[in-house]
Amino acid sequence: MARIVMKFGGTSVGDVERIKNVAQRVKKAVQEGNEVAVVVSAMSGSTNQLVEWCRQVAPLHDPKEYDTVVSTGEQVTIGLLAIALQDIGVPARSWTGWQVPVHTDGTHGKARIEQIDTQEMQGRMATGEVAVVAGFQGLGPDNRISTLGRGGSDTSAVALAAALGADRCDIYTDVEGVYTTDPRIVAKARKLDKITYEEMLELASVGAKVLQTRSVEVAMKHHVRVQVLSSFVDAPGTLVCDEEEIVEQELVSGIAYSRDEAKVTLVRVPDRPGIAAAIFGPLAEAAINVDMIVQNVSEDGKSTDLTFTVGKADLDRARKVLEDAKSHLSYERLACDSNVVKVSVIGVGMRSHAGIAQKMFQTLATEGINIQIITTSEIKISVLIEEKYAELALRALHTAYGLDG
Amino acid sequence: MARIVMKFGGTSVGDVERIKNVAQRVKKAVQEGNEVAVVVSAMSGSTNQLVEWCRQVAPLHDPKEYDTVVSTGEQVTIGLLAIALQDIGVPARSWTGWQVPVHTDGTHGKARIEQIDTQEMQGRMATGEVAVVAGFQGLGPDNRISTLGRGGSDTSAVALAAALGADRCDIYTDVEGVYTTDPRIVAKARKLDKITYEEMLELASVGAKVLQTRSVEVAMKHHVRVQVLSSFVDAPGTLVCDEEEIVEQELVSGIAYSRDEAKVTLVRVPDRPGIAAAIFGPLAEAAINVDMIVQNVSEDGKSTDLTFTVGKADLDRARKVLEDAKSHLSYERLACDSNVVKVSVIGVGMRSHAGIAQKMFQTLATEGINIQIITTSEIKISVLIEEKYAELALRALHTAYGLDG
Repeated sequence: MARIVMKFGGTSVGDVERIKNVAQRVKKAVQEGNEVAVVVSAMSGSTNQLVEWCRQVAPLHDPKEYDTVVSTGEQVTIGLLAIALQDIGVPARSWTGWQVPVHTDGTHGKARIEQIDTQEMQGRMATGEVAVVAGFQGLGPDNRISTLGRGGSDTSAVALAAALGADRCDIYTDVEGVYTTDPRIVAKARKLDKITYEEMLELASVGAKVLQTRSVEVAMKHHVRVQVLSSFVDAPGTLVCDEEEIVEQELVSGIAYSRDEAKVTLVRVPDRPGIAAAIFGPLAEAAINVDMIVQNVSEDGKSTDLTFTVGKADLDRARKVLEDAKSHLSYERLACDSNVVKVSVIGVGMRSHAGIAQKMFQTLATEGINIQIITTSEIKISVLIEEKYAELALRALHTAYGLDG
Repeated sequence: MARIVMKFGGTSVGDVERIKNVAQRVKKAVQEGNEVAVVVSAMSGSTNQLVEWCRQVAPLHDPKEYDTVVSTGEQVTIGLLAIALQDIGVPARSWTGWQVPVHTDGTHGKARIEQIDTQEMQGRMATGEVAVVAGFQGLGPDNRISTLGRGGSDTSAVALAAALGADRCDIYTDVEGVYTTDPRIVAKARKLDKITYEEMLELASVGAKVLQTRSVEVAMKHHVRVQVLSSFVDAPGTLVCDEEEIVEQELVSGIAYSRDEAKVTLVRVPDRPGIAAAIFGPLAEAAINVDMIVQNVSEDGKSTDLTFTVGKADLDRARKVLEDAKSHLSYERLACDSNVVKVSVIGVGMRSHAGIAQKMFQTLATEGINIQIITTSEIKISVLIEEKYAELALRALHTAYGLDG
């Protein structure tokens, strides 16, 4: 007998029929003798509707109230799934984030899970009751609902699996696993059988929408074996696991891209010690994540241009923060550009092989694509390019690294 | 300076623009120097959608899960209204039922409010912050969300007004007040300036959709002055208050009707002591309200027919309860009829005037309408008739009692 956490995303619970299908899958897992907790997202489209309502009422709104509104999406799904399970003879009850409770740090709209009390839940699961848990939400120290940010249900599932000491966390989604790149763009993309936490982390961080970054971090930290598989096709998916579990390791595992970033340039910032801290401090305080950063060499020794990327959703707030601090930062001009895409090459093989970056730059140069920003990590190289070149870059790199199926 | 509770129903918060209008009304009340708590319903249509989803998943479903699902409607509205208020410079925060908390008895789907802890809320209101409270919901002793049943937001508002010791509870709705009868059916219907709790209670109990029955009971018990008024038209509404506040009292205040009832007949029930208890006990246990009851005189001394009404929404469950108990109750046959309407004449003047019932029976007889069941109270006479005669009966009675405007 195993204890497993099953997670179903918005598309998998998109309507009443699909919720009933999910109930059947859960029933099968229960009949196989497993103790099961299910984590669900909001029905597809409902979160967008809720976010849109908040935006229509006021573009800049209190994240505490935003959380109150958008967390209702998952609450609807847990109730409906519990009803569907009971209807086919499977004992089940729903749990909102505050009922579990899933304690978070209370950063509204982007909360981090700090601790999950599973004592009552474990007692109920031991009696054969399926726990149906709302993903994406928790309870902040202010006794108010806090959400984990978009895609946070994956993190909820993995964190719950860790808290329950589950044998596996199965993430059901609308894709069949993790691919070498987006198969909608590159027809020759291949599904991977296994991938390391580190690679998955880099893929997730650059926009492969299969798993949320934070969920992979939590999985890696607690060694939670995560399987990504389709909720519509009955086929094995991709296992995200420790490097030791993977026998044959490829040099490059995948090529990813992200359209979710926007470029911000502060033109002619004074080139003095502490200026970076002065710029990024207020952004951090406003809980705005900054990703790629590049600072030009100062030509006159007095001022420089500083460029970085933020999430597109944060661009308006970032602009406001920087405009409010203009007198203090004394830059000349603020330039923003949403018309960019980040393309990344990922593989743990990079650690021990040279020339991988060079192949990327050469391939893009051959296609005539200009690189705006470059960042690298131990197992990833990312470049920011003009958005219109996204597909071209992806296809060329996929072929260049020998990933074509 | 006064402390007031303002309650807005589903139509008043039916979309983003209307929510912004509500925010303006609340701002006005705040600027007039009032401490304000606002109670809101779900956006119109959303509760129906949520209920329909539950029904589609399983017609007979766990009321605890039903509550989890349908309570999200109000949670969306409180967040959006708080955002709208903040956007026009009015400090505000939202409160779900479990956050206040609004303690209920935990009868899921039909919970009763037992106690409201307003200490934290009062402290915040004293600083000028508007409390935006989800109607219709509370927290049961099982730490799960319990809803008060349809229309429960009125009760939430009045109970909150009582708990806050508010000077007045204004119920904003899509009608301009309480009418002598339904103006959509009887063109000559008139708006009443004032009406007693007792009359309002009888009107509400027979389907005048202006205020929920339970809310009027709570108002009467705690002497909460309740004003019913339009959220779209800027005009005085109807004040529901103690009899002493009303100088000129009419003999009959209004004629009401309810299409929400269904008739159940148990044919040839054994005529023995305890049979009524045996029938209504299980219905009460299933939390099914029984309204009109009539037991025919036994012809043979052995068996009788027993007829009563239940809410149309409870009919399926009532039928199941009675069928399950058939061997025990040993009736011959169960007959159900949803094709009925209850018409009621209401007025505190009845207490001191004879002949009011007789006028009702005579008027219906003249129109050729057969009466199926009659019940009376101190200030009300109700009859159950075939549904198709509803409009005819209403118009005839409105004229007969001199209510035409």
